[in-house]
Amino acid sequence: MADEDSSPVAGNGLLDRRFFLKAGVASGAALMSAQACSADRPAWMRGPGAPMSGQGAPSEHEAYVKRYEIGSQPGTTGAGASRTPLEFLDGIITPSRLHFERHHSGIPAIDPDEHRLVIHGLVDRPLSFSVDSLSRYQTVSRIQFLECSGNSGALLAAEPVQRSCSQLHGLVSASEWGGVPLSVLLQETGIKPEGKWIVASGADAAVMSRSVPLEKVLDDAIVALYQNGERLRPSNGYPMRLFLPGWEGNMSVKWLRTIKVVDQPAMTKDETSKYSDLQDDGVARLFTFPMGVKSVITSPSHGLQMGDPGVYRISGIAWTGAGKIKRVEVSADGGKSWADAALDEHVLSKCLTRFRSAWRWDGSSAVILSRATDEAGNVQPTRDAVLTGRANGTFYHYNGVQAWRIDRNGEVSNVYA
Amino acid sequence: MADEDSSPVAGNGLLDRRFFLKAGVASGAALMSAQACSADRPAWMRGPGAPMSGQGAPSEHEAYVKRYEIGSQPGTTGAGASRTPLEFLDGIITPSRLHFERHHSGIPAIDPDEHRLVIHGLVDRPLSFSVDSLSRYQTVSRIQFLECSGNSGALLAAEPVQRSCSQLHGLVSASEWGGVPLSVLLQETGIKPEGKWIVASGADAAVMSRSVPLEKVLDDAIVALYQNGERLRPSNGYPMRLFLPGWEGNMSVKWLRTIKVVDQPAMTKDETSKYSDLQDDGVARLFTFPMGVKSVITSPSHGLQMGDPGVYRISGIAWTGAGKIKRVEVSADGGKSWADAALDEHVLSKCLTRFRSAWRWDGSSAVILSRATDEAGNVQPTRDAVLTGRANGTFYHYNGVQAWRIDRNGEVSNVYA
Repeated sequence: MADEDSSPVAGNGLLDRRFFLKAGVASGAALMSAQACSADRPAWMRGPGAPMSGQGAPSEHEAYVKRYEIGSQPGTTGAGASRTPLEFLDGIITPSRLHFERHHSGIPAIDPDEHRLVIHGLVDRPLSFSVDSLSRYQTVSRIQFLECSGNSGALLAAEPVQRSCSQLHGLVSASEWGGVPLSVLLQETGIKPEGKWIVASGADAAVMSRSVPLEKVLDDAIVALYQNGERLRPSNGYPMRLFLPGWEGNMSVKWLRTIKVVDQPAMTKDETSKYSDLQDDGVARLFTFPMGVKSVITSPSHGLQMGDPGVYRISGIAWTGAGKIKRVEVSADGGKSWADAALDEHVLSKCLTRFRSAWRWDGSSAVILSRATDEAGNVQPTRDAVLTGRANGTFYHYNGVQAWRIDRNGEVSNVYA
Repeated sequence: MADEDSSPVAGNGLLDRRFFLKAGVASGAALMSAQACSADRPAWMRGPGAPMSGQGAPSEHEAYVKRYEIGSQPGTTGAGASRTPLEFLDGIITPSRLHFERHHSGIPAIDPDEHRLVIHGLVDRPLSFSVDSLSRYQTVSRIQFLECSGNSGALLAAEPVQRSCSQLHGLVSASEWGGVPLSVLLQETGIKPEGKWIVASGADAAVMSRSVPLEKVLDDAIVALYQNGERLRPSNGYPMRLFLPGWEGNMSVKWLRTIKVVDQPAMTKDETSKYSDLQDDGVARLFTFPMGVKSVITSPSHGLQMGDPGVYRISGIAWTGAGKIKRVEVSADGGKSWADAALDEHVLSKCLTRFRSAWRWDGSSAVILSRATDEAGNVQPTRDAVLTGRANGTFYHYNGVQAWRIDRNGEVSNVYA
């Protein structure tokens, strides 16, 4: 279909999601003369290039693609976070070197030969597992997201802060996680009838500790040894971590050291002083485990510059702790009208899903938004709906719709729409 | 189910594929006293760990996990290959730093701002695309394998050579590949009615060039810009490469510079002097594009040492250019009897599929094999069947069954079974 046949499907130039698949848009491609097609070879074709190597690295031209670092929290060492540069990535896999970090007392330098996972408490036989002993058990692998429950907390600010997509939303990543189902190890130890929860603790100096109901543990929890095909990296729990698909990230305890089977939650510091949600009425919600349905447009986004008016690709990620993403809608007129985005081929459970829309930007100011719906029927809420009933400053589990305003000069800013 | 209930499902101790999922195996786990559960904290818990960083790296304890390098071919610079360390990986994603390399004249140091993809020949409008202009088009992403057609060629040797799994079979990897469908760009240029093939050429000094039938191009070819979420790495075609799912790797031309639409294959040096298959009768088979159905057990494999007799995990990868893997069978008695392996959750089209079996090794000498079947009904052939009719020394497209012999001392060797 020719460019002029592409009628908008929603306000302000949003084109059909199949538009890109039917026709190109001649945006920025240069018409060539036959002569130009036989242009001189560039310098890098005139002699042999670099040899093979033991491990590859990104191009030096891509050195700006790194995690956005924030310093440690005042008075601490290694307590803080670094964020995945979402606006420079595509697809659904996060390269392991760019997976977000959130540490409570830095990254411990663990000797894998010395490390043990001890399972004890309300079990028939307490057992100690080395990395080597875990390698004898059945392993599974699945591609799934991990999100810090504090992700996007900056959207609570009364006035929208001007930060990049990674600075606002970069505490989410997706990897192939491989490891031993924790249910298998618990069959080894046995579980006494009164065992209803586990308490998982890490080998960091902060001894990060969380209570997890046994029902989740027996459903899909794994002791992860592999991330994206290779062993976990130190910043993601080397040599082993708990992984709880779809639940708030801090519960997937890194550097997993002990699992104690108990009859009730332990009310650790990490689930009482932190990672609980204070409400307007003074009640703190505890154990708010699954991450809500959410999406964000990663391009365009704050810090990326639009060029001349014309057809642009809107691209973003959507995810939900409830399973698969069913639908992502995009608006280019501030939410007055919406159209379905195209979803990439792999729509996996509890994983990032990549969505894309085609948009003819006419060069005027516009506000773009995305809204995800999951297979359980949950619809991503507005910012107002997320904040209703929350106490001031309670920032966990923010999953409101993100709005970006495109100005006439092509600059993109964070707005509350 | 208790260990003693697990009856073999095939000869020599091969257990049901669900064995691991039903029960653990107490292999190497140590029974703990209650006292031992409260052992002293290790050194790395006694103070804060390392801070956040812009990009992560693997643990120093995993430094041995790297590509197996082979030197350049005599008289050349940068012509050769390095191989993915399959025996140390798990899951289906290959970390980009460990993706295999096969270069014909090294890795060119391309300036992405200067690089152009020119589409010309039997088109209505020859066009030149910069990296930036491609970013305006629709992008898709899929997780798929790439295999060099020369992979596993060492299995042609008259006597089995003793090399590791990566040395024998490491010219296969899988990534999430993201980019613009080539069909979209060809709609931009138009295709004259007599156009039936394309010739794709790279910006390396060897000007790697291959002819591709238009039918494949319009089916699922992409101009790839992203690998595992980030921009391609230099050794995999930065800033752009052709990607032809399921077809022999060299056709997915790296550093893609020109696409010429033609009426017949160009018979380039890379498809006549190389990458053709000489038969016993003197006829050379040309244009043998799709990679055949194949599998290999990555663990145990040569170079990995078995410990004491007991239950072991057999793990491996299977793939086919024809679509999805339907079934993988494993034998532990040299092929006399077979049992179905379990397949990991993600069984994707034209991708690696991870399979696993449980095996009770009794400590005696044994030969283990795997055999894959794809959704088109193709069954992985024996070595003898692959070699039948081939001229001596013709080593492309070897997909025969791999056999590993376990000796009484736990050493693993490559054998022809």
